[in-house]
Amino acid sequence: MTVEGNQDPDQGSATLSKKAQKKQAKDALKAAKKDERAASQVQVEKDENDVSSGKYGNLPLIRSQTGEEFAHLLGREFHHVKDLSSKLADTNVWVRVRLQTSRAKGKQCFLVLREQSSTIQGILAVSETISKQFVKFASNIAKESIIDVFGAVVTVPKKIDSCTQSDVELSIKEFWVVSSSKPQLPLLIEDAARPVSEVEQEGLNIKVNQDTRLDNRVLDLRTPANQAIFRLEAGVCKLFRDVLSKNGFVEIHTPKMISAASEGGANVFTVSYFKGNAYLAQSPQLYKQMAIAADFDKVYTVGAVFRAEDSNTHRHLTEFVGLDLEMSFKYHYHEVMRVIGDLFTEMFKGLRDRYREEMEAVKQQYGMEPFKFLEPPLILNFSDGVKILREAGVQIGDEDDLSTPDEKLLGRLIKAKYDTDFYILDKYPLAVRPFYTMPSPDDPKYSNSYDMFMRGEEILSGAQRIHDAELLTERAKFHGIDLDKIKAYIDAFKYGCPPHAGGGIGLERVVMLYLGLDNIRKTSMFPRDPKRLTP
Amino acid sequence: MTVEGNQDPDQGSATLSKKAQKKQAKDALKAAKKDERAASQVQVEKDENDVSSGKYGNLPLIRSQTGEEFAHLLGREFHHVKDLSSKLADTNVWVRVRLQTSRAKGKQCFLVLREQSSTIQGILAVSETISKQFVKFASNIAKESIIDVFGAVVTVPKKIDSCTQSDVELSIKEFWVVSSSKPQLPLLIEDAARPVSEVEQEGLNIKVNQDTRLDNRVLDLRTPANQAIFRLEAGVCKLFRDVLSKNGFVEIHTPKMISAASEGGANVFTVSYFKGNAYLAQSPQLYKQMAIAADFDKVYTVGAVFRAEDSNTHRHLTEFVGLDLEMSFKYHYHEVMRVIGDLFTEMFKGLRDRYREEMEAVKQQYGMEPFKFLEPPLILNFSDGVKILREAGVQIGDEDDLSTPDEKLLGRLIKAKYDTDFYILDKYPLAVRPFYTMPSPDDPKYSNSYDMFMRGEEILSGAQRIHDAELLTERAKFHGIDLDKIKAYIDAFKYGCPPHAGGGIGLERVVMLYLGLDNIRKTSMFPRDPKRLTP
Repeated sequence: MTVEGNQDPDQGSATLSKKAQKKQAKDALKAAKKDERAASQVQVEKDENDVSSGKYGNLPLIRSQTGEEFAHLLGREFHHVKDLSSKLADTNVWVRVRLQTSRAKGKQCFLVLREQSSTIQGILAVSETISKQFVKFASNIAKESIIDVFGAVVTVPKKIDSCTQSDVELSIKEFWVVSSSKPQLPLLIEDAARPVSEVEQEGLNIKVNQDTRLDNRVLDLRTPANQAIFRLEAGVCKLFRDVLSKNGFVEIHTPKMISAASEGGANVFTVSYFKGNAYLAQSPQLYKQMAIAADFDKVYTVGAVFRAEDSNTHRHLTEFVGLDLEMSFKYHYHEVMRVIGDLFTEMFKGLRDRYREEMEAVKQQYGMEPFKFLEPPLILNFSDGVKILREAGVQIGDEDDLSTPDEKLLGRLIKAKYDTDFYILDKYPLAVRPFYTMPSPDDPKYSNSYDMFMRGEEILSGAQRIHDAELLTERAKFHGIDLDKIKAYIDAFKYGCPPHAGGGIGLERVVMLYLGLDNIRKTSMFPRDPKRLTP
Repeated sequence: MTVEGNQDPDQGSATLSKKAQKKQAKDALKAAKKDERAASQVQVEKDENDVSSGKYGNLPLIRSQTGEEFAHLLGREFHHVKDLSSKLADTNVWVRVRLQTSRAKGKQCFLVLREQSSTIQGILAVSETISKQFVKFASNIAKESIIDVFGAVVTVPKKIDSCTQSDVELSIKEFWVVSSSKPQLPLLIEDAARPVSEVEQEGLNIKVNQDTRLDNRVLDLRTPANQAIFRLEAGVCKLFRDVLSKNGFVEIHTPKMISAASEGGANVFTVSYFKGNAYLAQSPQLYKQMAIAADFDKVYTVGAVFRAEDSNTHRHLTEFVGLDLEMSFKYHYHEVMRVIGDLFTEMFKGLRDRYREEMEAVKQQYGMEPFKFLEPPLILNFSDGVKILREAGVQIGDEDDLSTPDEKLLGRLIKAKYDTDFYILDKYPLAVRPFYTMPSPDDPKYSNSYDMFMRGEEILSGAQRIHDAELLTERAKFHGIDLDKIKAYIDAFKYGCPPHAGGGIGLERVVMLYLGLDNIRKTSMFPRDPKRLTP
C-alpha cells in the first residue's frame, strides 16, 4: 500500500494519469451511490406496517457525509458504556458498541453490547413501538459488528453478572449498524477471553491457541486482558519517561540502520542499502554513549531493537522495544545504579497505584501473583548470589555466568529469603561481560556491571563503560575485536568524556514479568520471531 | 561490539575460555596499576618546592575506586555552572567542566570553563598559594578536556561578555583533569558555534562545513545551538505525547520489520530475515489501523520510519522519527482533523512558553523568525489553495498535486494574507492520494484527506481511511495493487471497524521548520541519507 508520512506521500504510485483520474471519478461516484454494500449485511425487510420503521437498519457507509439526511447525526452525543450506571436510570442515551453476543428468546432478544472492556446488557422486546421485524433484524446481526444504539438506561432488580455494568441494562429504541462483521469469526472473543483456569478444567477444545490468536490479532486484541496489557505497557513507557525527565534526562533518538556489523555480525540483520549494506542496530549503546560524550549528561531513548537470534523461546523476540538510558557520574557508578534502581521502584509504584483495573483484568484471565518489591531495592553482589546458589546445591564457578535455570532458581531463593520479586546483582565477573565494561578497580576478576531481575528473569543489563579510548582499545584487542569496525566508537572518547554508566531494559519483558505472564508474545502487540513476520 | 539489552547479553562473544579469563585477570590488574595513561596527558613536573603540590594534576582514570585515597572524592558536592552568580560570591565550589579555551598571559592564565551551554571565566594567577608550575600545567591542558575545578566565586567589576555567567568568575584553587582530550581537534567548538551572519561576513575559511560537523558529531553536538536543538526536539515528543495522553490516546509500538513490500517495493529497504526476506516499514499505518479495528479507539506511536528514496535534498532522510496517530470518530473526519490541528497549537504554545532559552540559543547562531500560528488553526480547502496560487499566476489543474515550489509559494502567500506559519489544506484531489483514502461523499474528484504545513512545507499528511473491506478492495484493484500482498491489511476490516482518520508527522521536519533551519540534518542527531550511514 502507499504510505503516508512527512516525506512526500505524493511521490508514491498513488498519482494517476489524467485518463485514469476521470475513470476514477466515475467509479467513485458509482460507489458513493451504491448503498447495498456487503453481502454480509442483514437487510431490512420492507414492510409498510413496521411500526419501528426508521428506528433500525444499516447506516450508509460513514464517509463523513454532510447532506440533509445526515444533519441529525452530526450533533449526536454519545455516552461511554463504562459510565452507564443506575445514576443514569431512565435517561435515554446513544452508545457506539460492538455486538458481543445476541440471544433471541421468543419475542425478546438479549444482547451483550461491548465498548472496549465494558459491557452492558441490551434488551429488545416486541411491543407497541418495537416491531417483530426490528427484533429479528437485531438478532440476525453478526457478532463483533459495530452498532449505534439508542436506549433507556434501566435499573435491574437482579445483578447481571455477565456484564461489567451489572446494575443497569439498556432498553433499546434504535439500532443502527455502522460496520458489520463477517458472520464467521476465526476466534470467538468469549473463548479468547476465558480464564486459563476454566480452559484447563474444560479441556483443550475451547482453547484458542497462540498462533490462532496472533494470526487474528485484530480480534484477539479485543479481549479485556489484551486491552489491559497494552494500556499497562503504555503505562510502563510513560512512567519510564516521566521519572527520567523529572531527573533531568533528555530523550534522544538513535539510528536503527548502522554501517558496521560489529563483532563479525553475529545475530545482526543485514539491510540492502542502495548499492551497499547496512545493519539493524542491536542496541542504541554506541549512540547513547556518544550523546554522553557530547555533553547531554543524562539521556534515554525508547525504540526498536533488533536481534537476529534464531531462538524460539518464551522470552525472545527478533524485534523488541528497548528502554535505554545512559548517565554520566562523578566518581562511582553506583550513582547511576541507584538512579536505575529507584526508577524501577517508581515504575512499580506507578503501575500498582494507577493501573489497578488493568491488573484486575489480566488477573481475571491469567491469574497473577502480586509483584513484590522493596524500597530501596535489594542489591546483592554477584558473588553473594553464587553463594546462595551453592548453598542450594548448585555447582558454579566464581567466574561463570548464571544460566537461565540458575537465574530462575536464584529468583525463587531470593523471594523466599527477602520477599522481593525485584533485585539487583552487582559486580559480575569481567569475563562474562562485553569488552567495553569497566573492570573492577578492587578485584580484576570482576567488573563494574550489574543485572536487574524481575521474578528471576533478567530485565536489565548495565555497567560502567570504559570512557578512556586507550583502555577501550586495549580491551577490544584482548577480545579479538576488529578495531577498524569500532573506530567511530573509540573515537567518540578521544575528545574528553565523563565517566558514565547505563543500561537497557526490554519493555515487553518488563510487562510480561510484572504481570507474571508466561510468554513474551502476550506483551508484544505484533510480535516478531524467527517464524513470525505477520500480521 | 557486543551489545547489551534484555536478551541475554551473555550469549554474545563476550564469554571467554577459562584460560583467557586468567590472562585477562592479569592484564586487568596490570592496567589498573599502570597510571601513566595517555601520551596525550600533560604530566605534573616533580618539584619539592611546588607550593601547589596536591592541588592540581591528572586524576587516575575514574573506575569507581573506593580505596582510602578516593574517600575524599565520594562525598564531594558539585555546583552547576549555570547556577554560579553573584549570589554565591566568595563561596568555594566544585564544578566539573570542559576546558573550552585557555589563554596564558604572563603569570596569569584565563580559562573559559563550560558545562553544557553555560560558561564561566576561570582565573589562575601565580601567588603565595598558586605555583607557576600549577599555572603552566593548566595552560597546557588540551581544549575540551574535562576538569574538576575548585575555586572561589568572585564578583567581577566589569561584565564578562564572552561567558554566559557574566557577573562572576572562578578564582581557581584546585584543578584536576578527569578526562583529557587529544590536543588536535577536528573542529573547534567556537567555530562550530559561530553565528552564520559572522561566518558569512568573514568568509569561508572559518566555516565548519556540514560533513565535517557530522563526521565529528560528538564535538559538533557540544555547541549551544545543538544542545538547544535536541532538547527542543525532546520537547516536541513530550508535548506530542502529553497532549494526546490527556486526550485519551494509548501509546502503541508497531513492528519495523514487515513481511510484504506492498505496492511492488518502491522505496522499501529489504532485510535478510533468516532464510527469507523482510522489509523495513515505511510507516506504522497498517498497525495503527489494526489497533483501531482492535478497539483501542485512539492510538499514537513514536518510532523509526524508513524510506529508501535516493533523494539528497535538504528535507529527506532515509530514516526518521515518525509521530503517528490514528483515531476513530463518530460521523465526520473533521472530528479527528480538529484534534490534530489543536495538537499542533498545543505543541507550538508549549515550545513557545517552555523552550525560550533553547530558541534563543538557536537564534544566536542561525537567526530565526518567530513562528506564527493562529488559534484555532487556519483551515483552507485544497481548491482554495489552488485559487490563491492561480491568482499569483501559477498554472495548476484542479486535480494536480502541489509541487514543492508551489507549496512554498502558497506558504508565503498565506503568511502574507493570514499571518500564520501553520495551516491545514483539506480535501485533496482523490487522484493524488493513496488507495486507502476515503473518497469525498460530495464530489468524487476529491477525498477526505488533508495535509498540514509549517512555513510552506508539508509536515503532516493524513486522511479518513476506508474502513470497509469491500470498498477498500475495490479501490486497491483500481490502483492495480496486488491484493495478495495486502490481504492482512484488508482482513483487518472484515470483523467490524469504526470509521477513523489519522496522520503522520515527521519529527525532524517539525523541529527544522519551527526553528526555521535550512537542513533536516541539523535536527537529526545522527542523520541517515543515501550517502551517510555513519557515525
